[in-house]
Amino acid sequence: MKNSVLCFLLLLLTSVLNSQTKPLLGFSSQSTDDQLKLESQFGASLNTDSLRVWMQHLSARPHHVGSAYDKSNANYIASKFKSWGYDTKIDSYFVLFPTPKTRLLEMLFPTKHKALLEEPALKEDGTSNQKKEQLPTYNAYSIDGDVTADLVYVNYGVPKDYEELERLGISVKGKIVIAKYFGSWRGIKPKLAAEKGAIGCIIYSDPNDDGYRAGDVYPKGAFRNEYGVQRGSVMDMPLFPGDPLTPGYGATKNAQRLELKNAPTLTKIPVLPISYHDAQPLLEALSGSVAPQSWQGGLPITYHIGPGHTKVHLKISFNWDIKPIYNVIAKMEGSEKPDQWIMRGNHHDAWVNGASDPLSGMVSLMEEARGMSLLKKTGWKPKRTLIYCAWDGEEPGLLGSTEWAEDHQEALKKHTVAYINTDGSGRGFLFAQGSHSLQHFFDEVTNSVIDPEKNVSVAKRRKAYDIANGATTTSEQFQLEPLGSGSDYTVFLDHLGIASMNIGYGGEDDGGEYHSIYDSFDNFNRFKDPGNIYGVVLAKTTGNTVLRLVNAKILPFDFTVLSTKINGYITEVKDLVNTLKNQSESFNKNIDNDVFYLASDPKKHFVNPAFKGTVPFLNFAPLENASEKLNRSTKNLQKIISDQAINTADFENLNHSLYKAERLLISSKGLPRRPWFKNQIYAPGFYTGYGVKTLPGVREAIEQKNWIEVQEQIGILSETLNNFSDYLDKIAVLKN
Amino acid sequence: MKNSVLCFLLLLLTSVLNSQTKPLLGFSSQSTDDQLKLESQFGASLNTDSLRVWMQHLSARPHHVGSAYDKSNANYIASKFKSWGYDTKIDSYFVLFPTPKTRLLEMLFPTKHKALLEEPALKEDGTSNQKKEQLPTYNAYSIDGDVTADLVYVNYGVPKDYEELERLGISVKGKIVIAKYFGSWRGIKPKLAAEKGAIGCIIYSDPNDDGYRAGDVYPKGAFRNEYGVQRGSVMDMPLFPGDPLTPGYGATKNAQRLELKNAPTLTKIPVLPISYHDAQPLLEALSGSVAPQSWQGGLPITYHIGPGHTKVHLKISFNWDIKPIYNVIAKMEGSEKPDQWIMRGNHHDAWVNGASDPLSGMVSLMEEARGMSLLKKTGWKPKRTLIYCAWDGEEPGLLGSTEWAEDHQEALKKHTVAYINTDGSGRGFLFAQGSHSLQHFFDEVTNSVIDPEKNVSVAKRRKAYDIANGATTTSEQFQLEPLGSGSDYTVFLDHLGIASMNIGYGGEDDGGEYHSIYDSFDNFNRFKDPGNIYGVVLAKTTGNTVLRLVNAKILPFDFTVLSTKINGYITEVKDLVNTLKNQSESFNKNIDNDVFYLASDPKKHFVNPAFKGTVPFLNFAPLENASEKLNRSTKNLQKIISDQAINTADFENLNHSLYKAERLLISSKGLPRRPWFKNQIYAPGFYTGYGVKTLPGVREAIEQKNWIEVQEQIGILSETLNNFSDYLDKIAVLKN
Repeated sequence: MKNSVLCFLLLLLTSVLNSQTKPLLGFSSQSTDDQLKLESQFGASLNTDSLRVWMQHLSARPHHVGSAYDKSNANYIASKFKSWGYDTKIDSYFVLFPTPKTRLLEMLFPTKHKALLEEPALKEDGTSNQKKEQLPTYNAYSIDGDVTADLVYVNYGVPKDYEELERLGISVKGKIVIAKYFGSWRGIKPKLAAEKGAIGCIIYSDPNDDGYRAGDVYPKGAFRNEYGVQRGSVMDMPLFPGDPLTPGYGATKNAQRLELKNAPTLTKIPVLPISYHDAQPLLEALSGSVAPQSWQGGLPITYHIGPGHTKVHLKISFNWDIKPIYNVIAKMEGSEKPDQWIMRGNHHDAWVNGASDPLSGMVSLMEEARGMSLLKKTGWKPKRTLIYCAWDGEEPGLLGSTEWAEDHQEALKKHTVAYINTDGSGRGFLFAQGSHSLQHFFDEVTNSVIDPEKNVSVAKRRKAYDIANGATTTSEQFQLEPLGSGSDYTVFLDHLGIASMNIGYGGEDDGGEYHSIYDSFDNFNRFKDPGNIYGVVLAKTTGNTVLRLVNAKILPFDFTVLSTKINGYITEVKDLVNTLKNQSESFNKNIDNDVFYLASDPKKHFVNPAFKGTVPFLNFAPLENASEKLNRSTKNLQKIISDQAINTADFENLNHSLYKAERLLISSKGLPRRPWFKNQIYAPGFYTGYGVKTLPGVREAIEQKNWIEVQEQIGILSETLNNFSDYLDKIAVLKN
Repeated sequence: MKNSVLCFLLLLLTSVLNSQTKPLLGFSSQSTDDQLKLESQFGASLNTDSLRVWMQHLSARPHHVGSAYDKSNANYIASKFKSWGYDTKIDSYFVLFPTPKTRLLEMLFPTKHKALLEEPALKEDGTSNQKKEQLPTYNAYSIDGDVTADLVYVNYGVPKDYEELERLGISVKGKIVIAKYFGSWRGIKPKLAAEKGAIGCIIYSDPNDDGYRAGDVYPKGAFRNEYGVQRGSVMDMPLFPGDPLTPGYGATKNAQRLELKNAPTLTKIPVLPISYHDAQPLLEALSGSVAPQSWQGGLPITYHIGPGHTKVHLKISFNWDIKPIYNVIAKMEGSEKPDQWIMRGNHHDAWVNGASDPLSGMVSLMEEARGMSLLKKTGWKPKRTLIYCAWDGEEPGLLGSTEWAEDHQEALKKHTVAYINTDGSGRGFLFAQGSHSLQHFFDEVTNSVIDPEKNVSVAKRRKAYDIANGATTTSEQFQLEPLGSGSDYTVFLDHLGIASMNIGYGGEDDGGEYHSIYDSFDNFNRFKDPGNIYGVVLAKTTGNTVLRLVNAKILPFDFTVLSTKINGYITEVKDLVNTLKNQSESFNKNIDNDVFYLASDPKKHFVNPAFKGTVPFLNFAPLENASEKLNRSTKNLQKIISDQAINTADFENLNHSLYKAERLLISSKGLPRRPWFKNQIYAPGFYTGYGVKTLPGVREAIEQKNWIEVQEQIGILSETLNNFSDYLDKIAVLKN
């Protein structure tokens, strides 16, 4: 016992010495000590009980957009914020939100079969029987449709699957496709299918992906049982998220709205999600080519591609209603710099009961906010203004955050230092993505939070996870991966150029409840984060993040990390061009040499592939010069900041300049064919949906082999980077 | 039409010009022309009808070792050879061949269930109903056993699977294991299981490997249906193949035999193969840890590892009879060099009807032999002696070839130039393995045979296959991969040091009939090589191989290829040591840093892995010096041979020296713990069974981390190589 006391004292001493020798980014040595004390006090005030009570209440009934309980939850959350002393309001918007009127899927040939389209209640799951209030299984923003056609199996329905179909000489024109979930964001599947000429799209959850081949199924285990269906939005979010009828501006009560028929983000063909119970008879009936080995799923059949006279009838129609959504906005005004806003957000709407998605993150945000209010009661005040947002309508298409941010865009651009997002979160390891300028800062945060299972920093535990999962090189700094899309940070980062982050825990909470009636309180407490232990860890992580941002003397941006990352991305896109060039040349040589013909089996249909176009040499010099300039500018600025040789009077100018720097990364005309997406460094992929594309203008033009556009985008990106560097140089001069 | 005639004439001219400018290896320009004419005449004499008739006859009834039809087939084959003028005899041996007396597999807990152990007759398969003559489904050379224990699922039951079990803290001690077919030769599964303490072993065919997840199942398609079972030998062939009671010498009638209880190649535990129909209830009943993702098979369940009180009773016993086997040996005496033997072989016994395995290869060998006899009728005579062998007892353990070759070992070492093996063969692409000294020669052969589907050389078509399947670099020369085991070449190459090859066609003949009652004439003509087209292509390939070997002026060995390959293998084993060293160091560092503990889920059982032993620096210098010496010697000799500046009188000495050179690659004491395997360059892996290990003494000692043995084996191998080089140097001096 004595030994351990000694150890503790030594640790304490080390920690004190450390804090004296190494101040936090943006803090002086003395203020670092104060800050760490404050964080310690904050962390000690958090507890799991409140998370559990709130989660149980908020998940007690289905609370999708337009439901009675959605509004009730907004009021509940607002009342909590008010009770903690926040200046709280509910901001409403009015958005297009279709709900099913007709859902019919039947096979007409070779046998008659009608799909169930129904998730049964389970006695082991207390809320699964709330049939009257549950939204049926459907994909939101599918158009109405009544189509009958042959069925074709398209694997995940992503671009490379259509390349394979082309190799096999199979067209989906005039067909209904059936695609597996996973492999891309779901909205990509009907988008691509329609581009290829299909007239309907069925998406199903294969047991290979989140069903029995991943683990025991619910209720025995956490994975998707045969009836489980993944609901979800299929609007064309890579074009723009938010209300389809009010692109780029707030969907206020009297806002001008597009006509439904002109709404560009609705699907072009009808789409319906189904379970593997409903998919099996259809897939079993398919004939035609046997699907490639990698396309075989987990059902006990040989998957065929078709088409082979497997006739399917899909009929769906929707109530195309405008529904109100309720964003809860709660403010704690800053004492010194009220015009600098630190924003936190998590959505509160769900597809059904949503204990995990989104309430696990929502209740953690609430506990964090309660902790802040307790600090305030002790006399502490945030220097900057702190704003908590509980978004509505995230599930159908990031509606709440997008409409609110579009509606307040000028104020947000002017005032917002950073937006920190959370969403559903589980047990295990820290995962975070965000603006690279915040990586250095966030790395320090990750060392300040202790993992409850292993009693080391969450940073150290994540590093162990990476190594155990095969990472051969790990960097000292926690890696903030670039943000794609998939939650409410999108409008802040991609449309407004506000430094953003998304933070969560996971890796020990696998399951297949996603967007089904089984994402319930009962499920959560068995499989996700029993006892809400990690909900508190998340609150500590985001809480410390927020506390440092509101209190820092100099805002903790470090643009040298951004510069290094951009330099790496430039190398990537150059390599991509070279790879495409080599691939194209060797592919064409193989066609010349009859390789594909000679390797083909005469008993199978053979299509000699077409020659690939020539990949030209491109001029990357403007980008390379811009990158070198950026490297010099960021290093120079960072040196000045870290010297802290700045007059107090200059701090405010510096801080303002620092957080507004990120705005320079957006370009007013936005990305080709999707001007809403303005960020030149990060965007969700046009054909991945959630998955990030860094340097998106250049990278996607290369991927699409649009060489003229590549050269144009190199120009635009170089200009953006040069302007950014010039801006940083001006800050640096200002401070000297 | 005129154009194509012109083209033909031009082609003919080119071909004539080519033959004048580039003589075949071992031939002069003039004799090359004669040889090509001969081959052309030979090829034109072959036809598919005879193959079809013989296959239908030979596969009409089950013909395993000891069956009436096995003997009848031997007589049928012998009568054909006699009718073609061969000096033909049937050489009999008497071998241990167990057949089932009792086969019982039942689950006792959690539910009672008895396995069927039965492949049903199908109306689509004409011979599948010959129930009385079919061998039941079993693994030959399993010991008798009656065991009851908990069941544990061990994936493929190969070494890395047991490493995974160790990581999970699961022992198979005292348990019955259930392993999937594939991943290794089947005999490895019970061998390893017994080493790990298991008391019984069940092997089943998972639908993921050759069942419905690979393609449509029989009779709709070619793949294994739910009742199909893979029979097969599980004797410890990596120790020695052949009769378990007469290791190293012929199993003649009165040979001295080991007592059954002392036979080292019988399994240590009882083994039974089953279908996936029979496996599913057992696997479904397993509890305990969910199996890792890569262990999940194709059944519609979540695979668990157990053990979890899934109690299984396995009872098997056998008739341990001595049975006669019948090798057909047919000779065509050489006109000039009768003491130099070119040998061809294919087995005739099957597990059941065996249309594909082995008859597809057997009837091709017969057609080749018939073609030779037709050439002889025109006045041609082989210069060297040609011997055709139809082996019996290959399936249970290479019995026929091994006993015969052990019995005639002195004559074989003295006379045999090369042994060319075939076995079951299908439709598509040429696959061949063999002694590297024959690669240059065989490359020329592969350019002399035209593929019937694509009308290019089989070499060119195989190259297209490699490229289409992702090969990034292809060499000009056809690559003769090193031989492991799995067919009758084993005793020739590994025990006697005779240059050997194994040749077959495939890639367009996938299926799941292997070693089941569904390997039938009906199946073959639907899915394997309908019309026996490729059977004739194989006969042309092996026929040209044989014709060149019997006729060549100088035997077409090229040891420079061997030298290059050995040099590459030395690099491989050195790299392997470095890789193990790096892996071990980083693994131990990870243990020091608690990585595995920190990455583990506290809700799952965790075993902190043990430190890996240090990998020492080793002295590879003797091997590197030997390799350099070999490089010089082979180049020197090859230069002399290709100059052909040799007196006619010296040819015979040269030829004798050349084919006996390969004998120098064997070492009399053989490999550690398995002295029967004497070849120092090639061996089947001790823990792979069929899969080859080149430089086996050194490589396997490294894999087993037996560093003292590695150093010893480096010494032995270096000495072997140096002796070989000295021998080549002597030949070279002799000829100068």
